[in-house]
Amino acid sequence: SKFEYVRSFETDDTCLRNCYIVVRLDGRNFHKFSEQHGFTKPNDNRALGLMTRSAQSVMEELEDIIIAYGQSDEFSFVFKRTSNWFKRRASKLMTHVASQFSSSYVFYWKEYFEEQPLLYPPSFDGRVVLYPTNRNLRDYLSWRQADCHINNLYNTVFWTLVQKGGLTTAQAEDRLKGTLAADKNEILFSEFDINYNNESALHRKGTTLLWKKHEETVIRRMKQPNAEEKEVPVTRSKRRVENLYCDIIGEQFWEEHPDILEEDNC
Amino acid sequence: SKFEYVRSFETDDTCLRNCYIVVRLDGRNFHKFSEQHGFTKPNDNRALGLMTRSAQSVMEELEDIIIAYGQSDEFSFVFKRTSNWFKRRASKLMTHVASQFSSSYVFYWKEYFEEQPLLYPPSFDGRVVLYPTNRNLRDYLSWRQADCHINNLYNTVFWTLVQKGGLTTAQAEDRLKGTLAADKNEILFSEFDINYNNESALHRKGTTLLWKKHEETVIRRMKQPNAEEKEVPVTRSKRRVENLYCDIIGEQFWEEHPDILEEDNC
Amino acid sequence: SKFEYVRSFETDDTCLRNCYIVVRLDGRNFHKFSEQHGFTKPNDNRALGLMTRSAQSVMEELEDIIIAYGQSDEFSFVFKRTSNWFKRRASKLMTHVASQFSSSYVFYWKEYFEEQPLLYPPSFDGRVVLYPTNRNLRDYLSWRQADCHINNLYNTVFWTLVQKGGLTTAQAEDRLKGTLAADKNEILFSEFDINYNNESALHRKGTTLLWKKHEETVIRRMKQPNAEEKEVPVTRSKRRVENLYCDIIGEQFWEEHPDILEEDNC
Amino acid sequence: SKFEYVRSFETDDTCLRNCYIVVRLDGRNFHKFSEQHGFTKPNDNRALGLMTRSAQSVMEELEDIIIAYGQSDEFSFVFKRTSNWFKRRASKLMTHVASQFSSSYVFYWKEYFEEQPLLYPPSFDGRVVLYPTNRNLRDYLSWRQADCHINNLYNTVFWTLVQKGGLTTAQAEDRLKGTLAADKNEILFSEFDINYNNESALHRKGTTLLWKKHEETVIRRMKQPNAEEKEVPVTRSKRRVENLYCDIIGEQFWEEHPDILEEDNC
Ligand SMILES: Nc1nc2c(ncn2[C@H]2C[C@H](O)[C@@H](COP(=O)(O)OP(=O)(O)OP(=O)(O)O)O2)c(=O)[nH]1
Ligand SMILES: Nc1nc2c(ncn2[C@H]2C[C@H](O)[C@@H](COP(=O)(O)OP(=O)(O)OP(=O)(O)O)O2)c(=O)[nH]1
Ligand SMILES: Nc1nc2c(ncn2[C@H]2C[C@H](O)[C@@H](COP(=O)(O)OP(=O)(O)OP(=O)(O)O)O2)c(=O)[nH]1
Ligand SMILES: Nc1nc2c(ncn2[C@H]2C[C@H](O)[C@@H](COP(=O)(O)OP(=O)(O)OP(=O)(O)O)O2)c(=O)[nH]1
Ligand SMILES: O=P(O)(O)OP(=O)(O)OP(=O)(O)O
Ligand SMILES: O=P(O)(O)OP(=O)(O)OP(=O)(O)O
Ligand SMILES: O=P(O)(O)OP(=O)(O)OP(=O)(O)O
Ligand SMILES: O=P(O)(O)OP(=O)(O)OP(=O)(O)O
Ligand SMILES: [Mg+2]
Ligand SMILES: [Mg+2]
Ligand SMILES: [Mg+2]
Ligand SMILES: [Mg+2]
Ligand SMILES: [Mg+2]
Ligand SMILES: [Mg+2]
Ligand SMILES: [Mg+2]
Ligand SMILES: [Mg+2]
Ligand SMILES: [Mg+2]
Ligand SMILES: [Mg+2]
Ligand SMILES: [Mg+2]
Ligand SMILES: [Mg+2]
Repeated sequence: SKFEYVRSFETDDTCLRNCYIVVRLDGRNFHKFSEQHGFTKPNDNRALGLMTRSAQSVMEELEDIIIAYGQSDEFSFVFKRTSNWFKRRASKLMTHVASQFSSSYVFYWKEYFEEQPLLYPPSFDGRVVLYPTNRNLRDYLSWRQADCHINNLYNTVFWTLVQKGGLTTAQAEDRLKGTLAADKNEILFSEFDINYNNESALHRKGTTLLWKKHEETVIRRMKQPNAEEKEVPVTRSKRRVENLYCDIIGEQFWEEHPDILEEDNC
Repeated sequence: SKFEYVRSFETDDTCLRNCYIVVRLDGRNFHKFSEQHGFTKPNDNRALGLMTRSAQSVMEELEDIIIAYGQSDEFSFVFKRTSNWFKRRASKLMTHVASQFSSSYVFYWKEYFEEQPLLYPPSFDGRVVLYPTNRNLRDYLSWRQADCHINNLYNTVFWTLVQKGGLTTAQAEDRLKGTLAADKNEILFSEFDINYNNESALHRKGTTLLWKKHEETVIRRMKQPNAEEKEVPVTRSKRRVENLYCDIIGEQFWEEHPDILEEDNC
Repeated sequence: SKFEYVRSFETDDTCLRNCYIVVRLDGRNFHKFSEQHGFTKPNDNRALGLMTRSAQSVMEELEDIIIAYGQSDEFSFVFKRTSNWFKRRASKLMTHVASQFSSSYVFYWKEYFEEQPLLYPPSFDGRVVLYPTNRNLRDYLSWRQADCHINNLYNTVFWTLVQKGGLTTAQAEDRLKGTLAADKNEILFSEFDINYNNESALHRKGTTLLWKKHEETVIRRMKQPNAEEKEVPVTRSKRRVENLYCDIIGEQFWEEHPDILEEDNC
Repeated sequence: SKFEYVRSFETDDTCLRNCYIVVRLDGRNFHKFSEQHGFTKPNDNRALGLMTRSAQSVMEELEDIIIAYGQSDEFSFVFKRTSNWFKRRASKLMTHVASQFSSSYVFYWKEYFEEQPLLYPPSFDGRVVLYPTNRNLRDYLSWRQADCHINNLYNTVFWTLVQKGGLTTAQAEDRLKGTLAADKNEILFSEFDINYNNESALHRKGTTLLWKKHEETVIRRMKQPNAEEKEVPVTRSKRRVENLYCDIIGEQFWEEHPDILEEDNC
């Protein structure tokens, strides 16, 4: 039709080739959402579980995601360097991640919150960021995990002071003003007999999602010409998403999972 | 932390000022989705109702959307020219539209499909397109409504030939090859006594969402100092989303709704 | 060759359609360049003439430039809204403007500076800015002309105080601190008997370049079959670049030149 | 002023960090330019020398260029990965390269073409391309050098057939249709006794520009308090641009110049 010229106003937003494509999502106004849905403080395992379930759905339904990392109301998804999914169009990638995650969040809500109803449909923003080297990508993931650590240590002490120490939230805030990580560890240990390192790894480290390969054997009934039908075991290499709650900043994780990243010199 | 430098890899994607910002969503693989959920052919009113309900949620939860138009598995949202929501960052706009729409689609599913379960969480892609003038924007919306018309006329004849005419889908396809709009109208009229113009406006024209202003009066109990408490009627100007199934290509619609578009000469 | 894949790293930078494309150039480090080449202060007519000559070369060699405006070490070029030159690729437009201007600046140097040698090849930066409406474009040009006015008024008083008033540059700076336009006019008038409005329009208003149509008649010798050769006058519509030094902020200029801008409502 | 809002229409075009930034220039319509200035065929050493001189001017006047490569009417400039010149703004980089190159081309014309006048100021287009890894960057440079080789071999045989073999250009074109590199070498060798590998390296390999460090010793007169003035030799590390005409596709060049590229793993 004579209106079709309007298509030419669309712009190309192809991601630079040979870079890791990261899509990060973050819940809109989750301060309020978590209050209204009575999330336990500082960490609600149902909420974290639902985030992870939704992220798994993203990994399974979209192509070429090699690792994902989440904490609090955010999740980051890393597409492989050489991905050509949707011709690397940034809009397609970020909107499909945001959309699949959001519909999954509502879809799986009941599995995590059971009787407690979802009061309204939540929204997540998304963005695309490109990283040219393995070092940059690892530093990105380290940045998010360091953020998780800083927030969780703070929140843990804060809510311990409130919930176990009987402080008001204002007093707890005051108490923590200017303290360093070591101070916070010390408060937990000396006043509440809590060793922060023994706290839940899920809370301290956040959630890392990877692809894990495994063999799957199924029995197939097969019939060859001029032969009787018989049952044959068929083994196939499959993969499923694996959840980890470990350090991804140091070398160890990357040495143990050498297949996630391709070499830089390509 | 020393990892924070990775933020500087984020790029600015501010939309050019003084242009209409259109975000169009489209369902991923809805050919399959509609089959698996038994959508009636060619139009499923439950599905269309759910799309519209989700779009209404987008209009209500996001800022500055002045009009939205939907048909089939797609919906377009127009932000006003001068919007400064999220500083006009394209990623924020398109991911929030895609996310809010998707979570709403699952959230409101039961209101439209009742007992029939949603089998899996669907995904919608999104994109941003900018239009500098009223003419361009109107041509954009006309493009989508013309598309609706073309597809619906085709689908209407096609499924009438199959459902009422007893043709196979292959035969119906063959029959329609090379026919013009007039031919299709003629088939409907002479063979099935159907006047296409009397078909459902929802199907022929798609759905247009607008803001409609109305007065709302509530009774408030008020107490002035040194006076008795009394009931006072308080009237406020409110707005709600209105659904229309009308032509938006011609002049009439725009003359009847002069407030949607701002003047070009600004 | 196997290396050709590197082409796919080039990105598309098409300018949004139906917007005016402005390319603005600005001399690199012209503070130093003007000192080293002994530009007269505050305005050097040779320098301004050379800028304009170079801009004229840009208008003549490139396509679709409808108006250009220059002052000091800068020049802005406006491509028509519907231009499709180099498919509206921003890089092509801005580099060709910068390149043609720069080579012309050196090429025509001698016509303006005569014996005085050019000491080294200068550089000009360039940028592309898009404007969706006539109002925005006019405001852009007004912005540059207002800038010209502000700087020229300041520079005129400053150098008058120094050159005629015998102040040091530090004293002149001090004297002007905090003064408004009216104060500056007053200093010129009461102390130096200078009416600023009678100063050179070139300096006060900058230079506007337009296309001016004119008829050109040439004598052609022609020969028709079975006829004698004869001389025939052939008249053709031609255009040449015209220089103006007038106000382009008010309505008058645009009313007198209604052909520069297309209507917004397209 | 009230017009200043127009600045907000400028868009950010920062280059992705940690990528090599390549700016490639190419002469506009040099087919015609070379004809009109009587360039010798297939290679004009004056023209190539002037290109290289202009490129040297670009390397000296701009920041952070680590290597440049040129052939025919084009030149590519590589900015170091970590360059922050002009905050990596793509427009600034490409327009300054195009502008400095173009003004230099006119400025140095006489040094190469002596009495022969430059007829009009030429223009060069420019573009920015980003490469994330050393491999990608090397492949880019290899692509340009392979292009040089292919064109030069073709042109060499072509013009030999015409100039020495007495063929018309049409006949030469015909003769070469479908021939491979080996065939072309063979024609040169068996018919004209020319060993292509002995042809000028400048023509076969193009021009590579690098920074070469060297010590520079100057005599300074210095005076310490309470001591007599004396002459002191002062040695400083300086760098100058070096021209090479060698293979840059293979490993050898990069092994001999390990300082050009930074490591990928950063
Ligand atoms: N109680 C509780 N709150 C949580 C949990 N996970 C996330 N939240 C809340 C705490 C924060 O207020 C909020 C996440 O902070 P953000 O910086 O993303 O802010 P918010 O989402 O409110 O605003 P935004 O729209 O992202 O700018 O979510 C949880 O497990 N338990
Ligand atoms: N039966 C039925 N199908 C519908 C209805 N609305 C949409 N659909 C189906 C018909 C089309 O196959 C599909 C929309 O076409 P698209 O061009 O968007 O293709 P699809 O979503 O399959 O692929 P995509 O991921 O968008 O490229 O949705 C409906 O009301 N009833
Ligand atoms: N004496 C004199 N100087 C002029 C004339 N036209 C321009 N200039 C000088 C005055 C300013 O120092 C300079 C233009 O100011 P800019 O803001 O463009 O600064 P500049 O080019 O030095 O730095 P840039 O590389 O553009 O950031 O050029 C003139 O006609 N006479
Ligand atoms: N005779 C001669 N011609 C040369 C020499 N170097 C370059 N040229 C000419 C040959 C080609 O026609 C032209 C470069 O080819 P391009 O593909 O860049 O085409 P051209 O510049 O004509 O068009 P463009 O504006 O770049 O699309 O320059 C030379 O050394 N001698
Ligand atoms: O949302 P914040 O405050 O954690 O920080 P951000 O997400 O980087 O900011 P923005 O959402 O505005 O990009
Ligand atoms: O999805 P289509 O085929 O209707 O057409 P499109 O949406 O314009 O294509 P794309 O989704 O690839 O931008
Ligand atoms: O160069 P200035 O300071 O006049 O201002 P600008 O040109 O807008 O700044 P920039 O050249 O950095 O875009
Ligand atoms: O100019 P060409 O034909 O050598 O090829 P190109 O430079 O890659 O094409 P364009 O100048 O249009 O980007
Ligand atoms: Mg945020
Ligand atoms: Mg949030
Ligand atoms: Mg958050
Ligand atoms: Mg599509
Ligand atoms: Mg679809
Ligand atoms: Mg569709
Ligand atoms: Mg500047
Ligand atoms: Mg300047
Ligand atoms: Mg300036
Ligand atoms: Mg080209
Ligand atoms: Mg060329
Ligand atoms: Mg070329």
